[in-house]
Amino acid sequence: MIDTIRYDPHLEVVEILDQTKLPLEKIVLRCTTEGEIAHAIKSMQIRGAPAIGVAAAYGVHLGLHRFTGTEEAFATAWPELLDLLRSTRPTAVNLFWALQRLEQVVEEALLTRGEFSERLAIARQRTLKEADAIRAEDIEMCKAIGRCGADFLKEGETWITHCNAGALATAGYGTALGVFRAAHERGTRFRVFVDETRPLLQGSRLTAWELREEGIDATLICDNMAGSLMAAGKIQGVVVGADRITADGFVANKIGTYPLAVLARYHRVPFYVAAPASTFDLSISHGRQIVIEERHPDEVRSFGARPTAPIEMPVYNPAFDVTPPELVTAIFTNVGALKPPLGASIRERMTGLPTRPGPQARPAADPAA
Amino acid sequence: MIDTIRYDPHLEVVEILDQTKLPLEKIVLRCTTEGEIAHAIKSMQIRGAPAIGVAAAYGVHLGLHRFTGTEEAFATAWPELLDLLRSTRPTAVNLFWALQRLEQVVEEALLTRGEFSERLAIARQRTLKEADAIRAEDIEMCKAIGRCGADFLKEGETWITHCNAGALATAGYGTALGVFRAAHERGTRFRVFVDETRPLLQGSRLTAWELREEGIDATLICDNMAGSLMAAGKIQGVVVGADRITADGFVANKIGTYPLAVLARYHRVPFYVAAPASTFDLSISHGRQIVIEERHPDEVRSFGARPTAPIEMPVYNPAFDVTPPELVTAIFTNVGALKPPLGASIRERMTGLPTRPGPQARPAADPAA
Repeated sequence: MIDTIRYDPHLEVVEILDQTKLPLEKIVLRCTTEGEIAHAIKSMQIRGAPAIGVAAAYGVHLGLHRFTGTEEAFATAWPELLDLLRSTRPTAVNLFWALQRLEQVVEEALLTRGEFSERLAIARQRTLKEADAIRAEDIEMCKAIGRCGADFLKEGETWITHCNAGALATAGYGTALGVFRAAHERGTRFRVFVDETRPLLQGSRLTAWELREEGIDATLICDNMAGSLMAAGKIQGVVVGADRITADGFVANKIGTYPLAVLARYHRVPFYVAAPASTFDLSISHGRQIVIEERHPDEVRSFGARPTAPIEMPVYNPAFDVTPPELVTAIFTNVGALKPPLGASIRERMTGLPTRPGPQARPAADPAA
Repeated sequence: MIDTIRYDPHLEVVEILDQTKLPLEKIVLRCTTEGEIAHAIKSMQIRGAPAIGVAAAYGVHLGLHRFTGTEEAFATAWPELLDLLRSTRPTAVNLFWALQRLEQVVEEALLTRGEFSERLAIARQRTLKEADAIRAEDIEMCKAIGRCGADFLKEGETWITHCNAGALATAGYGTALGVFRAAHERGTRFRVFVDETRPLLQGSRLTAWELREEGIDATLICDNMAGSLMAAGKIQGVVVGADRITADGFVANKIGTYPLAVLARYHRVPFYVAAPASTFDLSISHGRQIVIEERHPDEVRSFGARPTAPIEMPVYNPAFDVTPPELVTAIFTNVGALKPPLGASIRERMTGLPTRPGPQARPAADPAA
């Protein structure tokens, strides 16, 4: 577990691990106002759709906690509070989903009988409870995914992961990294190679830090080094997260996932995906239906402010790729492992379960998440 | 053609394109002394084994050109001159090979009859001629490789290349990039995707610059983006250089070459290697016999002076990988295309030809080259 975000009931503050300072510094922000929460989301001190959802929920609680005016004043302040939080990362699906839950809770509380101050006190209590619940649900879901995947990770094995499907993108446990966390908690000894994940280096910056923090044996590689490790017989599994999984089992995830799946197939290494039920988008079936966003060329042709390629060099910079179901050995979910034929397994297990937008859902337009 | 290095007979200077300033500035150094040449090699203003060999040869000429002392003084100055140049990049095979050629030329010239000043004048002339010859031989060899490969590159195709097997590593034409140059000269229209080539970014810094300079349609990608381009059917060929090729056709080249070869096979895209006869090392047969150097972790976990991963993060950073012959469609050489079975083709065509160390040979210990 990493405390990506948590509420301290004694100090009455929301503690957020500042991800813009990682991996070099571990700084915990103590937020006491909704404005501080909004700033933390906007400036990506907290990122990853599930984590953003939790932050926004606590932001509502802090806003109510600080409010001291009349019912009339609240009628103006309340939509302003929601707008402030909604405007932080307009593409983050979980943000809207979490705020909807909080809105309902507050409006139900205000409909109770009694003085405004009493009803507001009830709303305050319930928002904290609801924010805590959103956080706890995410952690529980990730733990279930982790337990599911840990059954596949055998003593002494070495696996590869790509990008950061970790605690830092969620409330604190992670999806793909949740598998490693669960196996580590069981006492399984294993080793992880971490793809640095170009161009934005989520592997180097976040996954490397997270696994070290957890005491898991992890080694950083460039994305183009996984192939020769597999050729040398050093890899027994690959596990990645997912941004969206179609009804037929096509997996959209961070660019570089697909070549890893092809390499795994060529070397007969199992390739696993870890994702909650909410990542499944049953409204589409084939991977072709997923629109792949292209990102700014400077992500590839410069490093920070420093150019590393000719200034006007044309760049192709897709944020995601799509791995077809025939390359996926199994999908670890919070309702168990889905095995081939994936299309049938997904339709059987996911029908009736909550799907997008859910706690883990992330729009394909938010690749830095 | 790019003038990586050339001698200007009117100004009596050696012009070197400063590669430490690329891709942002195109600065030509004008060297008039052997010390300036030695500095240019040492500081990697010129790099790539064939290019270094040419530079050292011109360095000998400049040293003789400036010498004005007696025969006795020359007896001391001459070995000092050779030592100065030899000590610049001790792992560069071509450096020693070029200096040996020049040493022989000078010593033969000094054995002629006549005054010392007359014999020195002959030596001066012959060193220039020999340095020019080494440069011209490298260019001719690369042009032959280019013509060979250009026969395989069809109108309208899109190919991928990795690292910099280009003019900048040679006297001015390149091996893998020589194929593109030759096709471009023939008027073939085609497009190139350039792998950035982590960790040292030779693709972004050098290949991208070189192809743009030549007016070739080139687009930069991260190494992990080649897979989805192939899956989309956008790639018709891959061509890379080689550091060493064994008698059985195992190809040692920059890390990231092997996964590209696996992806090419999976997508039924031809995978080509471009290399001169001198790259073949007939003394070894299997790829297992090639020792893969591991480089410093900071190449992966920081960018310049800026850390991008936890400070003490363990890193695996192999400089090269080995592609087995079954993944290679053909090898473009200066004596024609070698096709499978590669072991038989190599033994048939390369026996009796000069092998390592040759003008294109590069030790596996010089991955920045």
